Amino acid sequence: MSSTQDLDYPQLLFQYKNGFLVSKIMFTACELGVFDLLLESEGPLSSDAIAERLGTSASGMERLLDACVGLKLLGVEMKSEGAFYRNTELSNLYLTKSSPKSQYHCLMYYSKTIYFCWHYLTDAVRDGKNQYDRAFGISSEDLYGALYRSEEEMIKFMYFLNDFWKMYGRDVIAAFDLSPFTVIYDLGGCAGGLAQECISLYPNSTVTIYDLPKVVQVAKERFVPPEERRITFHEGDFFKDPIPEADLYILARILHDWADDKCMHLLTKIHKACKPGGGVLLVETLLNEDKTGSVDAQLFNLMMLVQTEGKVRTPAEYSKLFTAAGFREIQVKKTGKLYDAILGRK
Amino acid sequence: MSSTQDLDYPQLLFQYKNGFLVSKIMFTACELGVFDLLLESEGPLSSDAIAERLGTSASGMERLLDACVGLKLLGVEMKSEGAFYRNTELSNLYLTKSSPKSQYHCLMYYSKTIYFCWHYLTDAVRDGKNQYDRAFGISSEDLYGALYRSEEEMIKFMYFLNDFWKMYGRDVIAAFDLSPFTVIYDLGGCAGGLAQECISLYPNSTVTIYDLPKVVQVAKERFVPPEERRITFHEGDFFKDPIPEADLYILARILHDWADDKCMHLLTKIHKACKPGGGVLLVETLLNEDKTGSVDAQLFNLMMLVQTEGKVRTPAEYSKLFTAAGFREIQVKKTGKLYDAILGRK
Repeated sequence: MSSTQDLDYPQLLFQYKNGFLVSKIMFTACELGVFDLLLESEGPLSSDAIAERLGTSASGMERLLDACVGLKLLGVEMKSEGAFYRNTELSNLYLTKSSPKSQYHCLMYYSKTIYFCWHYLTDAVRDGKNQYDRAFGISSEDLYGALYRSEEEMIKFMYFLNDFWKMYGRDVIAAFDLSPFTVIYDLGGCAGGLAQECISLYPNSTVTIYDLPKVVQVAKERFVPPEERRITFHEGDFFKDPIPEADLYILARILHDWADDKCMHLLTKIHKACKPGGGVLLVETLLNEDKTGSVDAQLFNLMMLVQTEGKVRTPAEYSKLFTAAGFREIQVKKTGKLYDAILGRK
Repeated sequence: MSSTQDLDYPQLLFQYKNGFLVSKIMFTACELGVFDLLLESEGPLSSDAIAERLGTSASGMERLLDACVGLKLLGVEMKSEGAFYRNTELSNLYLTKSSPKSQYHCLMYYSKTIYFCWHYLTDAVRDGKNQYDRAFGISSEDLYGALYRSEEEMIKFMYFLNDFWKMYGRDVIAAFDLSPFTVIYDLGGCAGGLAQECISLYPNSTVTIYDLPKVVQVAKERFVPPEERRITFHEGDFFKDPIPEADLYILARILHDWADDKCMHLLTKIHKACKPGGGVLLVETLLNEDKTGSVDAQLFNLMMLVQTEGKVRTPAEYSKLFTAAGFREIQVKKTGKLYDAILGRK
């Protein structure tokens, strides 16, 4: 941003200003099933054919497709009969519902819930708290009551989390050698995406997903096949109810939801339950110790403001909490992706 | 997007997914006055000082500032007392209210009105029409009735447009030599940003802003100083009311609001009113003739879907309309920025 040219016509500003347009274009093309249709079709399709198959207006669809071409989410071929659109490799992999790497549910959660909440970012910064009241007209006294404000909303969140673990799960589970730990509890394990990664990487492990009864019920019904004997369930609220003894506790994307006192309460309880020699694996986005980023963690930190009671922390801040709860030999592993891992031992 | 690394961890997808977060962070920092405060302050300020001066939560402000640092909208300096924040050159120039190049009002319009409308992009593509009903619960039968649904909303739009012309006005007015035209009408000239550029570049010209009576009233009160004798006003609805004779008619950001039939009606009326040898200057974002972009024009084309009855067109499409209305010697000038210019002669 140093040259005069950049300051005369500030591309960075335009990119930021248009950011939400770009997000919504990708979200909408996903939601309408553009990428699914183009994956299934025998070859490239015309805009009219896509509009007809997906039941949309012809003019709206053509503009959407052309914008996707500009954003490199679609390719286009000009034939004598007109333009024909096809998926890019990226779209096939991540934007179709059927791909093993699909981020469809994650993007829908961003589009429907998070985008709407972020309309109230200014209020969140002013108030220093989440915006469920302004965005959805519901109290946020009970955070997960707000987050799971209907079964539909809870299920959307579960699918969203599972998409996340498709992208990041393997790296965080592989960050440390967890093979010494065989009895593992995934606290707030939700739909089981991380539990699946864990048993697949560590053949001697069993993972118990500890979560709210209504979450466990849906996880069993929709996400974890009953023949998967190495994943079991424990219904409860880990803030209030007892935590059973185990070798390892996974806390993935949990502590970022909560203020320090609640984190301390939970970590102390876990330390008490933990087998001697056991540990706790924290999976979180981490801020750098200074103010240098990462940008993704900084964005996520504001997301936690808008939607939770917590925040993103630095490795030092988590180490301090771990130490205060009694854990030792604290190790931090950066994965180079959005989620990193911290291991502490009892 | 071709390497395996990119496809394993698709940065492009993350950038698009987070686009709206980035937009809202910049919008919110503007709205809260962060950049104004840092411009006026004697030196860099701490997060706590900024929060206190702007009346926000400390924790929310710190996260906002750190995200702005990550996005290169602020700089930070670590001192023994902690972090101190300062504006970048870009922020001083474009994100403060007092700068001559300020885009503050434009960004506020994006943040409050356009962001909210775009929550309904999927519906817009499905229905093929704008979303004032879903977004604001108002009928869009009368487009400018919807756009100017309150005086407050109208004034916001006028400030927004003026910010636009600060960025793009000079280039489009300088795209052709307009010095032969002395009596100029700016149809839908709104707050007069483009009229100001015109009289400043062409010392022999006078510009009459032709707009709705309520727009003219506010333009006189707030935007155009009464001592500016070379800018005059004409109250009316140019679709219904007579258009006076002139040498040149400017149509800047007008035709993109309307379907072809309304454009034809207007251009034909202008051609009739125009002095022989006179002309019409069109100022518009232009699509390429094929599907290759520009991306900004493609985004804008969807914005026109969500918010108007019109669309973005190619030079050939506009030339066709011009020719059908009787104009000749049609010349297209690309400025390299968001708005281009087309001149047609009678």
